[in-house]
This record gives sequence, C-alpha cells and structure tokens, in this order.
Amino acid sequence: MNYAEESLKMHYALKGKIEIAGRCTANDKESLSLAYTPGVAQPCLEIQKDINKSYELTRRWNTVAVVTDGTAILGLGDIGPEAGMPVMEGKCLLFKAFADVDAIPLCIRSKDVDEIVNTVALLAGSFGGVNLEDISAPRCFEIEEKLKARCDIPVFHDDQHGTAVIMLAAMINALKVVGKKLEDIKIVTSGAGAAGTAIVKLLMGAGLKNVIMCDRKGAIYRGRPDLNSAKQEIAASTNPDNFAGPLSEAIKGADVFIGVSAPGLVTKEMVQSMNKDAVIFACANPTPEIFPDEAKAGGAAIVSTGRSDYPNQVNNVLAFPGIFRGALDARASDINTEMKIAAAYALAGMVSDEQLSADYILPYAFDPAIKEAVASAVAQAARDSGVARI
Amino acid sequence: MNYAEESLKMHYALKGKIEIAGRCTANDKESLSLAYTPGVAQPCLEIQKDINKSYELTRRWNTVAVVTDGTAILGLGDIGPEAGMPVMEGKCLLFKAFADVDAIPLCIRSKDVDEIVNTVALLAGSFGGVNLEDISAPRCFEIEEKLKARCDIPVFHDDQHGTAVIMLAAMINALKVVGKKLEDIKIVTSGAGAAGTAIVKLLMGAGLKNVIMCDRKGAIYRGRPDLNSAKQEIAASTNPDNFAGPLSEAIKGADVFIGVSAPGLVTKEMVQSMNKDAVIFACANPTPEIFPDEAKAGGAAIVSTGRSDYPNQVNNVLAFPGIFRGALDARASDINTEMKIAAAYALAGMVSDEQLSADYILPYAFDPAIKEAVASAVAQAARDSGVARI
Repeated sequence: MNYAEESLKMHYALKGKIEIAGRCTANDKESLSLAYTPGVAQPCLEIQKDINKSYELTRRWNTVAVVTDGTAILGLGDIGPEAGMPVMEGKCLLFKAFADVDAIPLCIRSKDVDEIVNTVALLAGSFGGVNLEDISAPRCFEIEEKLKARCDIPVFHDDQHGTAVIMLAAMINALKVVGKKLEDIKIVTSGAGAAGTAIVKLLMGAGLKNVIMCDRKGAIYRGRPDLNSAKQEIAASTNPDNFAGPLSEAIKGADVFIGVSAPGLVTKEMVQSMNKDAVIFACANPTPEIFPDEAKAGGAAIVSTGRSDYPNQVNNVLAFPGIFRGALDARASDINTEMKIAAAYALAGMVSDEQLSADYILPYAFDPAIKEAVASAVAQAARDSGVARI
Repeated sequence: MNYAEESLKMHYALKGKIEIAGRCTANDKESLSLAYTPGVAQPCLEIQKDINKSYELTRRWNTVAVVTDGTAILGLGDIGPEAGMPVMEGKCLLFKAFADVDAIPLCIRSKDVDEIVNTVALLAGSFGGVNLEDISAPRCFEIEEKLKARCDIPVFHDDQHGTAVIMLAAMINALKVVGKKLEDIKIVTSGAGAAGTAIVKLLMGAGLKNVIMCDRKGAIYRGRPDLNSAKQEIAASTNPDNFAGPLSEAIKGADVFIGVSAPGLVTKEMVQSMNKDAVIFACANPTPEIFPDEAKAGGAAIVSTGRSDYPNQVNNVLAFPGIFRGALDARASDINTEMKIAAAYALAGMVSDEQLSADYILPYAFDPAIKEAVASAVAQAARDSGVARI
C-alpha cells in the first residue's frame, strides 16, 4: 500500500482524526440546569474551596495536552505548528485508543523557549499532564526542564523518554537472551539528539557504566572543542576512558550498538569488530543504520529496528500510553526515573521466558495487556517514590 | 429539584462532562500507518505547502477554544481558573450538543492581560475560533481587542456579544408587538459591565439613537468625574442630552429598560414613570431587577428575564452555537457587527408573526432549527462583509 497517498485521501475524507464527545445530555431545561447554569455553580465552589477537587469534578484527571512547536515533526524537520497538527491529532488518537486518555493537541506559534514554557505553564491547571512532542534538540531539553520546574503536573517529552523506556525494556530482554549484564557491558551509540541522550541517561539510571556516545563527528569526549552545553554534560558522565575517535573505532569490542541517527552508518565490518553476541539497535527510520540481514551476517545475535517489517520493532506506542495512564491514575506530580525504569521492566516482562528469543525481545504492540501492566507498574513506582497524590 | 445538590452529585459521578473521541481506528499496523507514521507525513507536507489546508486535513475547521481566566465565573466572581472549569466544560458540551462544534476548555493561570493575550494568540493555529468566557470587565474588553488584532481567527466574548445578539433579537420582536421603531425610542440601561456595554453598542449599530446607560452611581455622562476609559467611551457615544442623575430619574419617559445589573433596582413606580407600552428586560440572575408581575402592575407591556420559569427568557444558548457554526462554516477571520446583526434578525425571525405576542418574543431554545437559521445568516453576512475565506 502507498501509505502517503492513502493517508492523504483518508485525512481529506475525515477532516480531523479526533473530536469532542459529550458525556451527558444537554437537550432540555433540566439537563442544562444540571450540566450548566444554575447547577454548575456548586462544583465550581467545591473546587474553589479545594483545588484538588478539579481532579474529581472535571475531566482534568484524564486529560493530557499534546504540545509541539512544529520544529521537529517526524523526520520532516521544522515544518511549522499547523503542519504538525496531523501528527498531534494522531498522537491524541493513540492516547485514546491505547489508554483511554483524553489528549488535546496544542500547536504553538513560537520557537522561543520561554514563550513556549509560559504558554504551557499557564494552562497547567486545565490538564493532568503534558506530553511534549516533536520539539527540536537542544531546545527540547530546556523547555522540558523549565516546565518541570514550573508545573505541578507531569511533563514528559515522549521522543526522549518514551523511546528510552522501550529501549531499556528491549535491552533487559536482549541481555537475557545473550546472557550478559547491563553493569558489565560496553555500549556505543550513534546520535546525540533528544532520543539518544535520554536513552543513555535512562540506561545509566538502570545500571549501565560503560557507554560512549557518538555524534556526526565521532565520540563525545571531555575536552572536545565543539561541544554545546548538552553535549558537555554527556561528555562529563559517559565515556569513562575518554576515548576520542570515529564511531568505527569506538564500536570495537562493544557489546551493544544503539543507533538513533542516520541511514547506513554501520557496516558489516563494524559489527564484526564488536564483542561476541553483539546486540544491534538500528532505529533510524525508515532506513536503519544497518539492515538486520547485514548485521546478522556480521555476527550480531539480536537486531532491533524501528520498522514493522522486521522483528523487534521499537514502536513508541509500547510505552507512552501506559506511562501516562499510570501517572494519571496515581495523580502523579512528575514522571521520574523510577517510574520510567518501572515501565521498562513491566514492558520487558510482557515477553514470557517461553516467548523470549533473539527475534522476540519486545511484545506485540496491540496487546491491551501491555498498557495495563505498564500503567500499574508506573502508578506503583509513583507511590513508592513519593510523587503520587492519590 | 435542588439543582446545586443534584448537579454536584452528577459531576462526581461523571468525572468530566466532555471527552475526546477518535474518528478513525488505531488498532492494527495498517490503521496506525495511515493515521500516524509513516502515512501522516503526507498531510503534514500538504499543510506546510499551504497553511489553509490545516482547515481540510485536521479538525481545525470545527474546533473552538473556550478560554477563561476564572475571574468572572457566573455570578461567583474571581474563583480561579481551576474552579471555572466546570462552567467551561459545560460550555463545550453545549457547543457540541447545539451546533456540533468541537470546543476545548482552556483555563489560564494568569490575570495579566498581556499574558492571557499571548497565550491564546500563540495557540491560534490550532483552532478555528476563540470563545472568551467569564473574564471580568474592563479587562475583557482589552483582551478581546488585542486578540482580535493578533489573531487570524474569530475571537468572540460570549458574555458580551452573545447576550447582545439575543437582546437585539428580543428587541426587534418586542418593538413589533408594541409598534415602535428602534430609531425613535429612548432606552435606559442599568449595568455598564461587559454585557451592558456590548448590548448598547450592538443596538446602536442596528439603529438606536437615544440611550442612557446607568451604573451603580447613576447615568454615565460626559464630564462625570469618576469614569474609567471604557465608561468615558460610553459617555462620548450615548446620552445625547448628557443627562446627569440617578436611574430613577433617567428612566422617566423611556420606552425600554434593560437591566444587566443587580436584583431589585427597579420599582413599580419607576415602570409607571416610563412611556406607554414600556418594555422591560430585567436580566439580573437569578433575581431580576424587577419581577414580571410587578413590572406588569406598573404598566409594562412586555417583560423579559434571564429565568426559565417566566416567559421570554434571554438564554445564551439561543445565539452562540449558531454564531460559531456560521463563522466556522464560512471560515471567517472575524465575527463582526454585520454578522451579529444578521444573527439577531435570524433569531428574531424564528418567531413567526402568528406566534409573536407579548409573552413570546424569543423562540424556544431547544428548537434545532434556530442553530441552522442563525448559522446560515451569519455565514452569509461573513461573505457579504468580506471576512469569509470559503
């Protein structure tokens, strides 16, 4: 199927993938007097007395803002807020279909970090959470950090943290298959954008010690002259031996390669230079850093990509629906590292020991049990880490 | 029925009066590939090429933001943005039920005019229109004016203009009953807030010449020492003889009284001092400026209130659904005076000559034909006045 053409046709026919639905009637005096004036004054007064009642008397408890500025829409780049809306509506559709979350798309006409932060922060009382989407790096880091500081609701950049959770889940299962431990292995990554940075941070939060991140210019190391502040932070916390050199050198002896970068950057020879039972995550989309067949020819034991036509697809619908479901269910003030690690273990646990194999390290995305398992693990972690409010 | 108690119960049971609904499925690889990646890239690129396509490929064509800062919620005053949400969700419910408009409630955590303006203006690309709601005067005038200047979509403060449209419709029919003309009569009003000001402006736009507006201190006249800038503007354009004195003096000889102020301000004696066949709009809610029975005892020919238990209810659901439906259908960039006057005449026209009487000057609010008549008149006026884009 020609997805581009068929999708365009479908979008013209639908004129919008989501809409508002009423949860009660408003078709006579009686129903209007209860849902609207004069009756509605009473729930208003209850919330005025106790602002937490906004989670009981309105839809806030189940509502998430899906926010973009249109600067990094899919692989298309900075195409503007209006052009980003089809993706945001799609995301909202997935929120509803996968986790019964009511998500509202908001595309902001500004690229200024503080204007974006201010706009979202001033709306935080209308929502139970904020999902940032397709905002370019390194602005996305600053926007997320400032919003987390100002908001009393979870702020989660899915391109970073959703991807990181799935990658950790896949890693847990892949290392089971090859019989290695996260604490002991060497990982080399390609791509130091939003996703790459978040993946490495979360893996380190879960026990990883030895990791080298590479960008277009090779390994990121302490003292490299051209590093922006985000990459200086990376250099400070990764690359224990302060290796300097290209990806093709860095990858030698590595146990795992993680690519969230560009097509074709990894060759069969590079895979051959890795440690025994190498694990390859080649997530550049739609053309991976190396195709599974070639990676396997180079000796890889496990290969995962972002594509649905190969095994082990890293698909973001595996994580964000359950993560937000759990955060909303616990009325969490944050989605913290503990909750993300809990989500990853729950997701990894959806593949039973019997099912687990080199070609099955991640569960089937459309299994409704995934959302439930992830949500309950996330809500529990929120309670255990003190950010739950119910 | 005890509406307060029953409404509170209903709100606890419902946990939100609106929710998001998907308009297509997302339950397998195929449907996801069309609604989301990779297919969704194509509609994004179409909008990037031509921003007007955002009205064809997303829900923007049918979506309105319902915006408050929580400063003037119903008659409750400044109770805060979170406490205003039950009213905003109710409004969104009515938008859907009465006009199939998808309305999204946004409660802003700021009382600063420019912060509110900036927040809404930066989101204008996500919506086809903005309905301002329950924002205190005189801030609401400045917010609306600045937003209209910055936004390429209609910005409409319903408390002002929706009420004004219904009042003009009621006036058209009331004057038919008593055989008078708007150009010839004298109107005195009580209340110079958002609604009062907008009503007088629209009536003057439709032909009214002789009007005196009163606030708590009496008639607003040129040279009165305590006038803020909004009231100075009123003084400059109303009160042709520059009358100074209390409401009880101003009302003498008037053909029409319009109250959007406070309970009990008008007495039987004051009605007796009015011109023959006096028309009384006593819209303070729930207790009017004068009750219908007393006004009639004073000689009033027609009495209208905001209450559903008396004839001639001024009910805001009569106007805003059809006005926005029409503005959206014409993809209007504004809701201008021509459109508001057209809405009022369409609304007045819903009462046939056979039905028209002193106790039936406004149509029954739940007649679905109202929305259709108002919407088509508004869309036509948008085209005739050059603000329609389709």
